[in-house]
Amino acid sequence: MKPNLLSDKKVIITAAITGGIQGKWANPCIPISPEEQAQDALECYNAGAAICHLHVRREDGQNTPDLKVYNKAVSLIKEKSPIITQIGNGVGAWVEWGTKVSSKGKKYGTSIRMATLEERLNLLNIEPVPEMYTINAGTFEFRTRYGSHLFDNPMDFNRKFVNRCYKRGCGIEIEVYDSGHIINILDLVDVSSLKTPLHFSLVLGINGGAPATLNNLTHLVDQLPEGSTWQVVTVGRFNLRLTTIAMCMGGNIRTGLEDTLHYRKGELVKNNAQLVARMVRLAKELGREPATVDETKEMLGLKS
Amino acid sequence: MKPNLLSDKKVIITAAITGGIQGKWANPCIPISPEEQAQDALECYNAGAAICHLHVRREDGQNTPDLKVYNKAVSLIKEKSPIITQIGNGVGAWVEWGTKVSSKGKKYGTSIRMATLEERLNLLNIEPVPEMYTINAGTFEFRTRYGSHLFDNPMDFNRKFVNRCYKRGCGIEIEVYDSGHIINILDLVDVSSLKTPLHFSLVLGINGGAPATLNNLTHLVDQLPEGSTWQVVTVGRFNLRLTTIAMCMGGNIRTGLEDTLHYRKGELVKNNAQLVARMVRLAKELGREPATVDETKEMLGLKS
Amino acid sequence: MKPNLLSDKKVIITAAITGGIQGKWANPCIPISPEEQAQDALECYNAGAAICHLHVRREDGQNTPDLKVYNKAVSLIKEKSPIITQIGNGVGAWVEWGTKVSSKGKKYGTSIRMATLEERLNLLNIEPVPEMYTINAGTFEFRTRYGSHLFDNPMDFNRKFVNRCYKRGCGIEIEVYDSGHIINILDLVDVSSLKTPLHFSLVLGINGGAPATLNNLTHLVDQLPEGSTWQVVTVGRFNLRLTTIAMCMGGNIRTGLEDTLHYRKGELVKNNAQLVARMVRLAKELGREPATVDETKEMLGLKS
Amino acid sequence: MKPNLLSDKKVIITAAITGGIQGKWANPCIPISPEEQAQDALECYNAGAAICHLHVRREDGQNTPDLKVYNKAVSLIKEKSPIITQIGNGVGAWVEWGTKVSSKGKKYGTSIRMATLEERLNLLNIEPVPEMYTINAGTFEFRTRYGSHLFDNPMDFNRKFVNRCYKRGCGIEIEVYDSGHIINILDLVDVSSLKTPLHFSLVLGINGGAPATLNNLTHLVDQLPEGSTWQVVTVGRFNLRLTTIAMCMGGNIRTGLEDTLHYRKGELVKNNAQLVARMVRLAKELGREPATVDETKEMLGLKS
Repeated sequence: MKPNLLSDKKVIITAAITGGIQGKWANPCIPISPEEQAQDALECYNAGAAICHLHVRREDGQNTPDLKVYNKAVSLIKEKSPIITQIGNGVGAWVEWGTKVSSKGKKYGTSIRMATLEERLNLLNIEPVPEMYTINAGTFEFRTRYGSHLFDNPMDFNRKFVNRCYKRGCGIEIEVYDSGHIINILDLVDVSSLKTPLHFSLVLGINGGAPATLNNLTHLVDQLPEGSTWQVVTVGRFNLRLTTIAMCMGGNIRTGLEDTLHYRKGELVKNNAQLVARMVRLAKELGREPATVDETKEMLGLKS
Repeated sequence: MKPNLLSDKKVIITAAITGGIQGKWANPCIPISPEEQAQDALECYNAGAAICHLHVRREDGQNTPDLKVYNKAVSLIKEKSPIITQIGNGVGAWVEWGTKVSSKGKKYGTSIRMATLEERLNLLNIEPVPEMYTINAGTFEFRTRYGSHLFDNPMDFNRKFVNRCYKRGCGIEIEVYDSGHIINILDLVDVSSLKTPLHFSLVLGINGGAPATLNNLTHLVDQLPEGSTWQVVTVGRFNLRLTTIAMCMGGNIRTGLEDTLHYRKGELVKNNAQLVARMVRLAKELGREPATVDETKEMLGLKS
Repeated sequence: MKPNLLSDKKVIITAAITGGIQGKWANPCIPISPEEQAQDALECYNAGAAICHLHVRREDGQNTPDLKVYNKAVSLIKEKSPIITQIGNGVGAWVEWGTKVSSKGKKYGTSIRMATLEERLNLLNIEPVPEMYTINAGTFEFRTRYGSHLFDNPMDFNRKFVNRCYKRGCGIEIEVYDSGHIINILDLVDVSSLKTPLHFSLVLGINGGAPATLNNLTHLVDQLPEGSTWQVVTVGRFNLRLTTIAMCMGGNIRTGLEDTLHYRKGELVKNNAQLVARMVRLAKELGREPATVDETKEMLGLKS
Repeated sequence: MKPNLLSDKKVIITAAITGGIQGKWANPCIPISPEEQAQDALECYNAGAAICHLHVRREDGQNTPDLKVYNKAVSLIKEKSPIITQIGNGVGAWVEWGTKVSSKGKKYGTSIRMATLEERLNLLNIEPVPEMYTINAGTFEFRTRYGSHLFDNPMDFNRKFVNRCYKRGCGIEIEVYDSGHIINILDLVDVSSLKTPLHFSLVLGINGGAPATLNNLTHLVDQLPEGSTWQVVTVGRFNLRLTTIAMCMGGNIRTGLEDTLHYRKGELVKNNAQLVARMVRLAKELGREPATVDETKEMLGLKS
């Protein structure tokens, strides 16, 4: 697809409120409990977000594939606002803090773990039914400052996930981390029930995926099938500028504490709504009004 | 140069308040008289602009190379504010309205004219001395809705202009309209006193130059010599989004009624300061503070 | 257009046998007289070329718009072989050698001159009628080691030229030197009888136009309208490799002493057919057979 | 890195004679036994190749990590010619033909298997010592017409492999399948003994990696660290043209039955030397002489 610098489509804002790995040790304002998450989702909704992208946490703050926690979080979110819930099917990683002690008295041996394919398939049993799931378009080694783990996303798993997801009546967003992933998805269209137009998140800056550069963004957009919708997901320092560029190119917006812990250099984010509010201000200045939940459902072909 | 998505340099904002061709018939808020221009320059300065890019007009509103008008405008601007004055050495085009009448009673035969090389060299005699001039990096046919004209910018003329400009103690900004123009400038560095780092305006969307696409922007930036400063100049509908993208890439900002007559679709700009204020808001949201006049002089190597 | 790395279309080979400026002083094997040109055209035809791109020369070897010379050259070429004749409507430049003498006894003051628009329009009266003309898609300053000259190609001139050219029943190839020129041509389609699909030469490496880089080649190809045919024209050292890349991308081939004086580093070309033969060998190795004259006429929509 | 269209460096030609998966069922001329491989390596050496990239096979023709077979193959190759041996540390995949029978009597259930990380580390015990190994810069699902398999290349494994490889005195070539892999390698430089300049194979067209397009080639080359050497590895129909483009850009050459089973459309390759000979002819036409074994060792920093 060519970028559309003149797009006046409503812009869909997704708030990724909790994230796949970082906990309160990195920013104490990350919502961890379902109650905190529901509150943040409401505030993001009020600020202009239409979608809440969700990972859930154990009581100790680490990520978990536990269905009970997902059920509670989705349920509480839905009680408070009509925001669309979107479950990241990668679950995320949990940190196993190192307990070995070096001769200098420093702890080491920290590593990460990720959910199994079975645990991830099980997310399709979340109740109440969320409106959307994300799938991950390719396998790679996910490397973080806490350690590395295989992020396994085989075609066969994605095929099963897509088919069951549609049977549940849920929509799908596709997370793409590099050029090869787009081809994976075109192949997936052939062997699964995955329907076009496709909805992409172009994830940049994860170690193991394409780095967060403008060249990588334009290179990926250029390879998307005509008619797709897309947004960029960039972690850390590149988040704000690449997201703004994407919006200028006709893409949608994702923001939230999953993607950026700092509001600006040296200043931690206070809450998810603060990030949404900034993107709403930017979107309006740039001539793109935020899409409502209903408009988003229509644009993404979700059940209303 | 690679784009710098993390630049935290102060951003230089240039207000191109009057423009090279459009008159009050297109937007009645374009400042025409030196008095109007000085007022707009002051308001832009107050809103955050550090440079006022200037074309002047005859009493009938058409562009003119008349030194007396330039002198008066520069003089009045300097009386009101310390904003840097930057003279566009292309002068611009004036419209000669068609007087022929078609069988259907419609007037036709409208054409444009542009200043001679001599008239343009004469701009180096403006008093009081402006801080900066722009040069145009290549020759092409400048096509407008009112007609077309050779926009002649031979190497030999630019060589003379640069040498005299530096002798006057003035700075130079280089307007580039296509890939070949960058090579022209590298050659000009060899045969003139033009000093690096160079300061570029990448002008997109003029008929005859490169069209206003993101690909053209990144393609031109990629070809700039390392260490240059740059901004994008995009006319019309592409202005706001490409300017914002450029700022995210580490570029500076130019805005003003020269570049865009509409604030947004269907809504005419009210005054130049309105455009500057929007870019200041965007810049601040994106983590780049507007450079003051003094900071700008230091960044561009201008005399203070 | 996207490059087509799998194209198995026949490849059209154009021999640009004489060129727009260089004379026997640069390579004594450049054919100058109509007789030499007809002989070279025949040899190129025998080697696999389908088109002979032509500039003609005065008796002193300099370029000329003189119709008598054109008539004789086209006539002799057609007598010897069925190769398609293609007249470059830019005519080219002639060198006026400097006669001033420096204090060190060195001659200086060399400059170049180019044909007027009237002289160029007059090429439409060449008899016998050539099959094709080239037009130049934009105005710029053409800079050479012998001096610089305005290369004037206004829209209005191109409009007239195209309309008359088609009335004569001749085909048109469009020479593009930078991004803006492609837009010029899309505008020309609107105001003239210029028919799609369009046939482009992407000229790289002329000072004043886009430099000879792979990025510029892919950038220009990307901007061509779908369905166009194209070739790259690169002067000097970049000729062989960019031409080969273009052929791999699905483009056609142009070669000849107009574009390259050296067969390889330090070795002058012996004759035009030597260059054609190399491109034929390369084309065949790469799976693209040279198009015959008849196949070329069909591919370019020329009268047979 | 920018492409270098003027490179006159000697070009290193690697013959990938056997490949990671295809067997005699796909082309009966693929050398399978160590004796056949040694003969092909000799012929490729005589034709101009300096490196033999090697996978070995069981007696039934399937890939194997069996050290005894590697030892025999390397030993026989070295007896016959001084060609550099390069062991692909991915080993490749072996096909387990489906034995289930459908109701229509068709066999199905074919799948592939790949070597374990332990089996791959064990390649560092091959005797006699090969001059080079390749490592794979990232993990992804390797998809073939016979089935898919995780191609696991974690950072930790690569770190170990590189360190041991250098201790053995062997050189390293890095296979990159997508943008993210280049970042993986820059990280690997930090945590291992991997030395710059780095030697890259940019592998395009494997399902799971970046597709075989010119855009992907130039995008990857653009991201390589300055001073690297590189070649493109493209499977199937894209092989010849992308390899030729890469050579024009200053890259090295890899060819062989691993990468392409067909010499041209509809015509199977007769033997590896046929492919090497074509690339030698192309390289010479394009002004790049094949590097000898000694020149290659110097260019890649291998022990001589």
